[in-house]
Amino acid sequence: MATLCRPAVSVPEHVITMQETLDLARTIHADHPQLPLALRLMENTGVRKRHLLRPIEETLRHDGFEVRNRIYEAEAKARVPAVIDRALEDAELRAQDIDVIVYVSCTGFMMPSLTAWLINTMDFRSDTRQIPIAQLGCAAGGAAINRAHDFCTAYPEANALIVACEFCSLCYQPTDLGVGNLLSNGLFGDGIAAAVMRGRGGTGVALERNGSYLVPETVDWIAYDVRSTGFHFKLDKRVPGTMEPLAPALMQLAGQHEWDATDLDFYIIHAGGPRILDDLSKYLKVPAEAFRFSRATLTEYGNIASAVVLDALRRLFDEGGVEDTARGLLAGFGPGITAEMSLGRWTVDDRVPDTASALVSDLVEETSRVG
Amino acid sequence: MATLCRPAVSVPEHVITMQETLDLARTIHADHPQLPLALRLMENTGVRKRHLLRPIEETLRHDGFEVRNRIYEAEAKARVPAVIDRALEDAELRAQDIDVIVYVSCTGFMMPSLTAWLINTMDFRSDTRQIPIAQLGCAAGGAAINRAHDFCTAYPEANALIVACEFCSLCYQPTDLGVGNLLSNGLFGDGIAAAVMRGRGGTGVALERNGSYLVPETVDWIAYDVRSTGFHFKLDKRVPGTMEPLAPALMQLAGQHEWDATDLDFYIIHAGGPRILDDLSKYLKVPAEAFRFSRATLTEYGNIASAVVLDALRRLFDEGGVEDTARGLLAGFGPGITAEMSLGRWTVDDRVPDTASALVSDLVEETSRVG
Repeated sequence: MATLCRPAVSVPEHVITMQETLDLARTIHADHPQLPLALRLMENTGVRKRHLLRPIEETLRHDGFEVRNRIYEAEAKARVPAVIDRALEDAELRAQDIDVIVYVSCTGFMMPSLTAWLINTMDFRSDTRQIPIAQLGCAAGGAAINRAHDFCTAYPEANALIVACEFCSLCYQPTDLGVGNLLSNGLFGDGIAAAVMRGRGGTGVALERNGSYLVPETVDWIAYDVRSTGFHFKLDKRVPGTMEPLAPALMQLAGQHEWDATDLDFYIIHAGGPRILDDLSKYLKVPAEAFRFSRATLTEYGNIASAVVLDALRRLFDEGGVEDTARGLLAGFGPGITAEMSLGRWTVDDRVPDTASALVSDLVEETSRVG
Repeated sequence: MATLCRPAVSVPEHVITMQETLDLARTIHADHPQLPLALRLMENTGVRKRHLLRPIEETLRHDGFEVRNRIYEAEAKARVPAVIDRALEDAELRAQDIDVIVYVSCTGFMMPSLTAWLINTMDFRSDTRQIPIAQLGCAAGGAAINRAHDFCTAYPEANALIVACEFCSLCYQPTDLGVGNLLSNGLFGDGIAAAVMRGRGGTGVALERNGSYLVPETVDWIAYDVRSTGFHFKLDKRVPGTMEPLAPALMQLAGQHEWDATDLDFYIIHAGGPRILDDLSKYLKVPAEAFRFSRATLTEYGNIASAVVLDALRRLFDEGGVEDTARGLLAGFGPGITAEMSLGRWTVDDRVPDTASALVSDLVEETSRVG
């Protein structure tokens, strides 16, 4: 049974509060006819602060697509390895134990993907599989979990590493002045998350089933316009309402597993925005409190794209987890509009950990020597 | 056992011969100090003609990254569905039977990926999984086969659809004047390939094992420089020599399967260039003739990136396949430098096909009515 272990998460050091965001919007867009609406939407996100790669004055400058991709690459190389190290440590594995790296990121583009650099630099085996996914946006966190789960289902002894690296601030486009863009400028944050999925052993979510759902005819609701200035984020105003078609998909997946989506023990949901969580609470008839991990991510980091689900799961670990065999639902939502959903049970690894067994054998050796 | 069925392949209608390519290079780069070397390298590729999306005068114009991505999207939408239809037909499946679409393409960028549009447009189920991969370049054909194989291993009843859509001519960069670029301008072509992998049944390559290998410290040998003008292809002059480290990886994978890589019945190899095939022939001690499918692809279409392995496999089908249970090796090579390799046996579906059994039952019904 593949177990998704404790995610490690890192956010950069430059903090911008919601108050600062609102003040900036008032200054930059003083003449914007829909400024009051944009400010109201931003305030309603519930985001209190976000963490950015660079100071705000640098973030607001557009250095061109080429420079931004260079910053993406340099910052990813500088920041991702430490997060992976922590994820490996938490899962009690070494880089050499990893069979596949699923790397998801939609905020910079490199070919080869960062996976090749990671394999060279971090002592991963040369036969590590690489699954780089750039085009599933915020749904990619869920997709990474699901593809890692599929891989561990195919090869039950295998271990997967999931990495979500999102520097949303590198996609800030000063010339995009739609209300959706203004809102996005106040919603997205930067963050990196990594988690190991162990084929055998491990404490965390033992995955039992996964599924995808594409909401028909919503392909342009969340999309990139790809231009010489880079990726321009387009957000349709109908997006916040998509829990109406997606809640039944979540219920159906749970139903296929003979579970009831309204009655699970934990929920790890992509916090795209506050309405996503409010509506899902309503449609699934689940108390708002059940989404506290997602809500905390949104409040403290903003929407960190594909890293949200991993950060929300990290917060469940920080709370001490749940009781053994407790049932839960994980879901990422993003462009397509695509939902990537999974079902699993909390599991506690009760094997003697390697360090403990090493201590025991040291002791035995010591005793036999004394004897 | 997952079986990779007959690939369908389509190349666009605008043909450029090697003679025309050389004449163009002589005109455009008349003053280039390394023109003679570039011409010699181009001639040595063995490419006789390539197929391009647009007439050569349009191809040579750079309309900007935004326009190019729009052309990519429009042409992919116009051309991919017919190729998929043929692949489905050849595998005797309908779109509704497909559980996962692995879409590989490194020559245009869309978010959401074309998979979302395909699901909406072509009667795929809303729960079809999407695996879009943009960052494995020419290795992505092999990676798509391997990830589809993993998926069918995890879910033995599942069927996968592989699509490789490469419009390399949209990455032509008139200002890139290195010898590697001049060579690339004469080497790459456009093409689309699709193939179904059936979890049960099907005639083709029944896959038994797959593996990846990353050649250490070669991460910048094949790479994109991502700029406001789009993807700039960088090709190191050491690339043609990479079969020396890769041949042992192929032999090792075969060895793990208790096969001998020098003694297989068929070889479907990425035809990156002529030296790849010559060297692999030498290192694996395999007659050049064994690579005739790859050689034919290179000669007639040029290097069509991730679509090469599928086109080479299509040519094996066109030749009538091989005898049942014949053993073969498939391999894609690309940035990283990454090899994506798989081993399988030719298998002939001997079940009564659906159409035949339908005919039989019609006949039975007819007979009983007559009776």
